[in-house]
Amino acid sequence: MATDTEQLTFPASLEGWWYTEPAIFAEEQRAIYGQRWVCVARADEVPAAGDFLVREVGGESLIILRDDEGALGAYYNVCRHRGARLLTDAAGHCGGVIRCPYHAWAYGLDGALRAAPNMPDWRRERWTNLGLHAVAVSEELGCVWVNLADEPGAWDDDIGRQIRSRMGSDELMSAWAMPSLVTGTRRVYEAACNWKLIVENFSECYHCPSVHPELTTVLPEFKRGKGTLHQAGYGAAYGEDIGGFTFDGRPGLPPLPGLSAEDGRRYYGLVLTPNVFLNLVGDHVILHWLEPIGPDRTRIVCHWLFDPAVLEAGYDVEPSVELFHRTNLQDFAICERCQLGMSSRSFAHGGNLVETELQLRDFHAEVRAAVGDAGRPR
Amino acid sequence: MATDTEQLTFPASLEGWWYTEPAIFAEEQRAIYGQRWVCVARADEVPAAGDFLVREVGGESLIILRDDEGALGAYYNVCRHRGARLLTDAAGHCGGVIRCPYHAWAYGLDGALRAAPNMPDWRRERWTNLGLHAVAVSEELGCVWVNLADEPGAWDDDIGRQIRSRMGSDELMSAWAMPSLVTGTRRVYEAACNWKLIVENFSECYHCPSVHPELTTVLPEFKRGKGTLHQAGYGAAYGEDIGGFTFDGRPGLPPLPGLSAEDGRRYYGLVLTPNVFLNLVGDHVILHWLEPIGPDRTRIVCHWLFDPAVLEAGYDVEPSVELFHRTNLQDFAICERCQLGMSSRSFAHGGNLVETELQLRDFHAEVRAAVGDAGRPR
Amino acid sequence: MATDTEQLTFPASLEGWWYTEPAIFAEEQRAIYGQRWVCVARADEVPAAGDFLVREVGGESLIILRDDEGALGAYYNVCRHRGARLLTDAAGHCGGVIRCPYHAWAYGLDGALRAAPNMPDWRRERWTNLGLHAVAVSEELGCVWVNLADEPGAWDDDIGRQIRSRMGSDELMSAWAMPSLVTGTRRVYEAACNWKLIVENFSECYHCPSVHPELTTVLPEFKRGKGTLHQAGYGAAYGEDIGGFTFDGRPGLPPLPGLSAEDGRRYYGLVLTPNVFLNLVGDHVILHWLEPIGPDRTRIVCHWLFDPAVLEAGYDVEPSVELFHRTNLQDFAICERCQLGMSSRSFAHGGNLVETELQLRDFHAEVRAAVGDAGRPR
Repeated sequence: MATDTEQLTFPASLEGWWYTEPAIFAEEQRAIYGQRWVCVARADEVPAAGDFLVREVGGESLIILRDDEGALGAYYNVCRHRGARLLTDAAGHCGGVIRCPYHAWAYGLDGALRAAPNMPDWRRERWTNLGLHAVAVSEELGCVWVNLADEPGAWDDDIGRQIRSRMGSDELMSAWAMPSLVTGTRRVYEAACNWKLIVENFSECYHCPSVHPELTTVLPEFKRGKGTLHQAGYGAAYGEDIGGFTFDGRPGLPPLPGLSAEDGRRYYGLVLTPNVFLNLVGDHVILHWLEPIGPDRTRIVCHWLFDPAVLEAGYDVEPSVELFHRTNLQDFAICERCQLGMSSRSFAHGGNLVETELQLRDFHAEVRAAVGDAGRPR
Repeated sequence: MATDTEQLTFPASLEGWWYTEPAIFAEEQRAIYGQRWVCVARADEVPAAGDFLVREVGGESLIILRDDEGALGAYYNVCRHRGARLLTDAAGHCGGVIRCPYHAWAYGLDGALRAAPNMPDWRRERWTNLGLHAVAVSEELGCVWVNLADEPGAWDDDIGRQIRSRMGSDELMSAWAMPSLVTGTRRVYEAACNWKLIVENFSECYHCPSVHPELTTVLPEFKRGKGTLHQAGYGAAYGEDIGGFTFDGRPGLPPLPGLSAEDGRRYYGLVLTPNVFLNLVGDHVILHWLEPIGPDRTRIVCHWLFDPAVLEAGYDVEPSVELFHRTNLQDFAICERCQLGMSSRSFAHGGNLVETELQLRDFHAEVRAAVGDAGRPR
Repeated sequence: MATDTEQLTFPASLEGWWYTEPAIFAEEQRAIYGQRWVCVARADEVPAAGDFLVREVGGESLIILRDDEGALGAYYNVCRHRGARLLTDAAGHCGGVIRCPYHAWAYGLDGALRAAPNMPDWRRERWTNLGLHAVAVSEELGCVWVNLADEPGAWDDDIGRQIRSRMGSDELMSAWAMPSLVTGTRRVYEAACNWKLIVENFSECYHCPSVHPELTTVLPEFKRGKGTLHQAGYGAAYGEDIGGFTFDGRPGLPPLPGLSAEDGRRYYGLVLTPNVFLNLVGDHVILHWLEPIGPDRTRIVCHWLFDPAVLEAGYDVEPSVELFHRTNLQDFAICERCQLGMSSRSFAHGGNLVETELQLRDFHAEVRAAVGDAGRPR
């Protein structure tokens, strides 16, 4: 096997070691998941004052907490005294105070230190410096987003910009009214592959004909191997004889109220790096977010979001859910198979990107810029 | 989150990475557990000539062996020929010789090579150099201590000095007559945390009010959050209405014969770094030793030691054992919770030590001096 | 423990870290298993055109494939497009084409790219560069050997030379007619030790008296602790009262047709580094090959090969198989026990090689030359 770069015929993908090296993964956690806006929850998972979620981002355990004014706060789940983990349940209600079980230091819903045993009063003046370390948090599209950067940029400059670039405008996106939708079904997957393989997989449709029989039946133009990401404002039309976005094309649910008749029969896919995919169809939205676990392991949380009136009316959402559930299983299985090739010396220079995949290079450039040479093998 | 040192209000504990980095752990195994006197057994676990124990210290498997004169020897459990492990049982009796199962090299109870098949006689003159590699061993306080250093210091200069510093004198310690005590109960715990968190936990009582309801009932002054370590020769008195050092304060066992009436109702805690805790009370002694397994895993062996006459008389020791068994479980659970925070960037500069914990800094200084910069992350 | 080299009395074996360091293992995989001729299968495991095997060598998944002309090919099991693993079954039949399940790229039995969806015709001229990366393969002694080197040497210059050196000539070896033999029994073992300990174990018989009671009964000269490797063309004679090479010395099978009467009652052992052992006896051949899994884990595949006429006639081969099966279990258990000593500082300079083991130094020199200082601990 010749190992020089001459072996590549088409533009190269990332070299295989980007998907396997622990040092790369650590640096991605630091420089991407620790610097960018990352989706961690639906906002209705933490509805009332004192409700909390515990989520892991970039290797850090975070507390997401709604305060008395209804605003979200996010804090490192680490006591400022000796480092004990404050909350261990994934979700719950903490009343007005979070008390550390080790030495009983107590923090308010705003993260400030409120009480500490045996502490001389004259020292209280220094307590302003002893609150929980905070993290930027934003509630957008009905989702909770956090940003661990010391100086986080605006959500709109990162995620908002990506939405406008894909949809052509904020207006089109707002037609789906995501903050008003509610979760009908939530499924959590775990795939034995690197998170970037899942992003790449979602970013191209060259695999659709061989991997997704149901999806390409509902969206016949996907049989041509091109997706919807490459054209701003473009959605793929359902097939003429297709009733709705369901696993077998049967009619789906009543259309979402804000959509045009045309968009009621179209599919828009969005990749919002680093960790979100959106699938907008006529009667629901499918939301994915990724939670990288290790170089070769990723958790994928998937929410099927519906008009609350439709759920209350008792419509059967299962045929709708089943379509993308199958699509998910098909995708994650093939991504796991790709992971197996990433450590081969025959993939040391990466693969060959054909024309319909060239958009993957934007993602690759983004990752290369963030990580740099930090994890390159010797 | 500001990540400069200004965030600390009180004196700092060790930075979080001291508890998580494999390189730190490896260096501690080499420079602390491989250089200091470490307790590995009670002496009565290896009573007769030819009896052996196999114990692991600093990543090394050791044979503890009593010879024909009743003296203890300690040897690397590694055949000098090709490196096979000689003994695999945790304890047993080897007769007069330890024979390697691979090529039948045989060593005497003094570690010397006694026989090797097919070896020309003229080579026997060189055999003096082929005995098992020896390790320093000492029998003190009724315990077996080993020291893997090439030039080990005296036990008394390390552990003895710590005892005198805590107890004020050797005389007070000798009142418990530890060599004469026997084990009534032995329990082995495994905690998902670094061994240093367990040392720190045992070294302060600021957590006692929130973590140890039974212990603070028996020793009411522990409710004030101060332990007994900080005052030479000081023991904490039982509560006035407390019958004995039992889980519910009921009367315990007959007092140990050598104690003053006053010490019959007091608790003395000792930390003998790197791996021993002693708890001296009026009618028994609780001995802990630590066996670090990994950066985030520690085995704790706990012996409850009693006057042999009391055990022979059939007294029920369970109410006595139960008090510190509960205390152990409470401590190890909270230490495991601390371990979870050690890898957080919000703990990269460590925590804030309040006044009643300042003695932890001596232990931190000891560890820093031994390990140096060896495991500091880039 | 003195840690200078003076402690060694006899010539040193490899230092302990050669058997434990992940960096050494990685370098061995690259510089030995990735550069030398390695046995991976019997040729009759892939008999017909389109039959394939999937085997792992040097950390690489390989496809072994028989083409329409009956010739073997070997290819990296990695799609040239995006790196997906092409075949996941350990063995099977692929018809005339191997199709990647991700985007349906299809390769012929010669590894060339035959089809790829949505690819403009003008690009086909570049397809010559898009075939599967090939690996050298050779069918010798009825076995499949692969060589991952960019410029592989001839099989005969490596393995053939080793056979001549041991047997004195190619003629003697050819008497066993290995290509014509067939597998009667195949057993796969996994041992918790480094592959080199298994090579060393097979390369000396100093352990035979203490480890192999059955083998030394059949071959009494093995009780003297010398094997057959050190004398070119020498085979060890069965004991006078031994009927055959069976676990209890009962008569075995009809002799192999090509052997002299004398060789019908002799044992020849061969080590063909890096990964093959041969045991030639009067009525069968025992073939071992090693598959290193990690620094402390090795798979050993063992085939008992017989004259097909003997198998067809229904002879009971079990007493023959049982002898080396017991020998295998004895050897792998003792090698696992050696592995436990390799990480000890008391073995940091290695062990003491006695006179009957000096041939191990050739293997050690071979490994040192290939790996160099790549994995030496700091």
